[in-house]
Amino acid sequence: MNTYAATLLETVRSTRPLIHHITNTVTINDCANATLAIGAAPVMAGAIEEVGEMAGIAGALVLNIGTLSPAQVDAMVAAGKAANAHDIPVILDPVGVGATTLRTKSAEKILRECTVTIIKGNAGEIGVLAGSGGTVRGVDSGGCAGNPLEVARRCAERWSTVVAMTGETDIVCENGEAYLIRNGSPMMERLSGTGCMAASVVGAFAAAGDDPVKSAAAALIAFGLAGERAERESAGPYSFRTALFDELASLSQEIIISEAQVEQIRGI
Amino acid sequence: MNTYAATLLETVRSTRPLIHHITNTVTINDCANATLAIGAAPVMAGAIEEVGEMAGIAGALVLNIGTLSPAQVDAMVAAGKAANAHDIPVILDPVGVGATTLRTKSAEKILRECTVTIIKGNAGEIGVLAGSGGTVRGVDSGGCAGNPLEVARRCAERWSTVVAMTGETDIVCENGEAYLIRNGSPMMERLSGTGCMAASVVGAFAAAGDDPVKSAAAALIAFGLAGERAERESAGPYSFRTALFDELASLSQEIIISEAQVEQIRGI
Amino acid sequence: MNTYAATLLETVRSTRPLIHHITNTVTINDCANATLAIGAAPVMAGAIEEVGEMAGIAGALVLNIGTLSPAQVDAMVAAGKAANAHDIPVILDPVGVGATTLRTKSAEKILRECTVTIIKGNAGEIGVLAGSGGTVRGVDSGGCAGNPLEVARRCAERWSTVVAMTGETDIVCENGEAYLIRNGSPMMERLSGTGCMAASVVGAFAAAGDDPVKSAAAALIAFGLAGERAERESAGPYSFRTALFDELASLSQEIIISEAQVEQIRGI
Repeated sequence: MNTYAATLLETVRSTRPLIHHITNTVTINDCANATLAIGAAPVMAGAIEEVGEMAGIAGALVLNIGTLSPAQVDAMVAAGKAANAHDIPVILDPVGVGATTLRTKSAEKILRECTVTIIKGNAGEIGVLAGSGGTVRGVDSGGCAGNPLEVARRCAERWSTVVAMTGETDIVCENGEAYLIRNGSPMMERLSGTGCMAASVVGAFAAAGDDPVKSAAAALIAFGLAGERAERESAGPYSFRTALFDELASLSQEIIISEAQVEQIRGI
Repeated sequence: MNTYAATLLETVRSTRPLIHHITNTVTINDCANATLAIGAAPVMAGAIEEVGEMAGIAGALVLNIGTLSPAQVDAMVAAGKAANAHDIPVILDPVGVGATTLRTKSAEKILRECTVTIIKGNAGEIGVLAGSGGTVRGVDSGGCAGNPLEVARRCAERWSTVVAMTGETDIVCENGEAYLIRNGSPMMERLSGTGCMAASVVGAFAAAGDDPVKSAAAALIAFGLAGERAERESAGPYSFRTALFDELASLSQEIIISEAQVEQIRGI
Repeated sequence: MNTYAATLLETVRSTRPLIHHITNTVTINDCANATLAIGAAPVMAGAIEEVGEMAGIAGALVLNIGTLSPAQVDAMVAAGKAANAHDIPVILDPVGVGATTLRTKSAEKILRECTVTIIKGNAGEIGVLAGSGGTVRGVDSGGCAGNPLEVARRCAERWSTVVAMTGETDIVCENGEAYLIRNGSPMMERLSGTGCMAASVVGAFAAAGDDPVKSAAAALIAFGLAGERAERESAGPYSFRTALFDELASLSQEIIISEAQVEQIRGI
């Protein structure tokens, strides 16, 4: 997997896929800059009048419900259908699902009305979407009920999708196969938007690759490694932020090959 | 007051209250990161379909009209009523009030239809809301007519609220009592969003404390001290920004006890 | 031109014009901080109920369609008409024009219904608005068809406006006269929002000056020089970002006079 992830990073940079985001107003700038830093091209476009056309020229679509409204969810569904028609991957970041009824209903609406390729969420959010229970307080995970790997597998099965559950150990799985990724930094919890940025990087790798579970795992390895390296240069959460983007931009194949901490599990 | 403020900072960090914001799109990321840095948990949620539910699980509600629309103001009123029903503090940052009719009418609508616990504004904004005159140019204060302490007191009396008026000397008052705070940095004027971040920190302290005037004073001490310390490490407004968040995150009880510059005035 | 640009920078700082923006949610914070850093005062206000009043107290109006919606475009037109009535310059940043029908139709609607003083765009965007062909992928320029100077001149003629086309060499022209500016940094392409920030700086200089083509050229010199200097202090795109704002804030007349790389061309 280390070599696969390293190669896919270079594919992102050489093909520079366009990543269409419909996302929240809190971290929209972080998502644009994370996409640029990893080597892809961001575009943020949320008007229902243009989302289908924009998704039609993109390499992946990232949907993030962090500051959702019903009108925005309608635009997400329209964009998702266009992405499906053009056969490009759709990544859903179900921010805060479970915290309010609107968030839960909206995430489920998107999952029912479009084919989502990858759900990227924290343990609480994935627990909610698995139907097995999760705790979400605002946009923070309070954890899921039960074994995280089993919850991720159940969520993947329920929605016929790849699940990327972030946490101290990231779990990426689809039915039958999982990757456990142990790269990352505790500083990521202390900065707003790291989860959203991770979804953007997943979008870039999913656009460049052809195997969503491996693309998502490679993306979380890359993002986790940038975080690990940034932590060493940081005096606090905001100097960490500066270093995180710089490290995403300077991440090399060599770093991934030598420092990725990933374990594959079959037959889950 | 120094010891009180130091203790309240630790309460913020140990209880990690959820601070629900309905705020502007310019500084929404700064508000999220300031809330995180001081030790609380931010959530930004503005859809009228979910604001009542989100306010119901929060420790404080921060309303900021920096990029208001009539629909957003309706959501603020709905959230404010829910916050009142759950008895959590409501902080209003009346950004640019007085600059346009929409801003003035909207701030007054919020103040009439909800119980606002603390108004945090600059001298111009507080002068406008006191009804005694203030000058606001865009979102910048042109000062208030008359003695600032008297204007703050009058605003507090008019709206039955605590007033936190920021400036070279911050004034926090309610009817009968005031705190003058002389911490801070002139760099704060050169960076967008420092006023909004101050309101987020006030929200965090108000959620953790039970005396709004003291909570607001403690918050402005903490924010001012982070600014003072950040200034020493800065080459310009953006390196100041990085340092400001890092200093908010590393602020200690010891720093507050030894460096707070606060004066209490009774019988105003 | 070097001395002219240096003098205009000081006029920006001494008069501190209010720059009213209606802009996208991705880079709205960058635009506010770039405006502050160069020495002007930003205000972001997009509600149709207040845009006319806000434009009426501003020194310039900056319209940016990066995350447009039809309702936002209506507010832009209303603000543009108010700006025209008050005789303040209007700057249009047609982000992503050509990428979708909505963007192209909206930019043309603004240009038809208001008098735009300066269009600031990349080569692809200017090519689209010139009617001579340009390639835009998301919000990235794929270049214009034909000679860039001729395309810029044609766009200026078509819309009776000044055109500021950014690129490795910036071209600022109106009918008959052009400036070629060779300041800048390749790092600007690796950070989201540098084009938007450039438009904010153009707005500040246009508010301070009385000759739009010279104001736009002076602004791009200033912004380019800040970029050049920031590049030398950067380890990657995000430390470049910090340095870019700090350099905008510390830019001096002396730097502009000695380091501006600008060539005037007459009779185009």
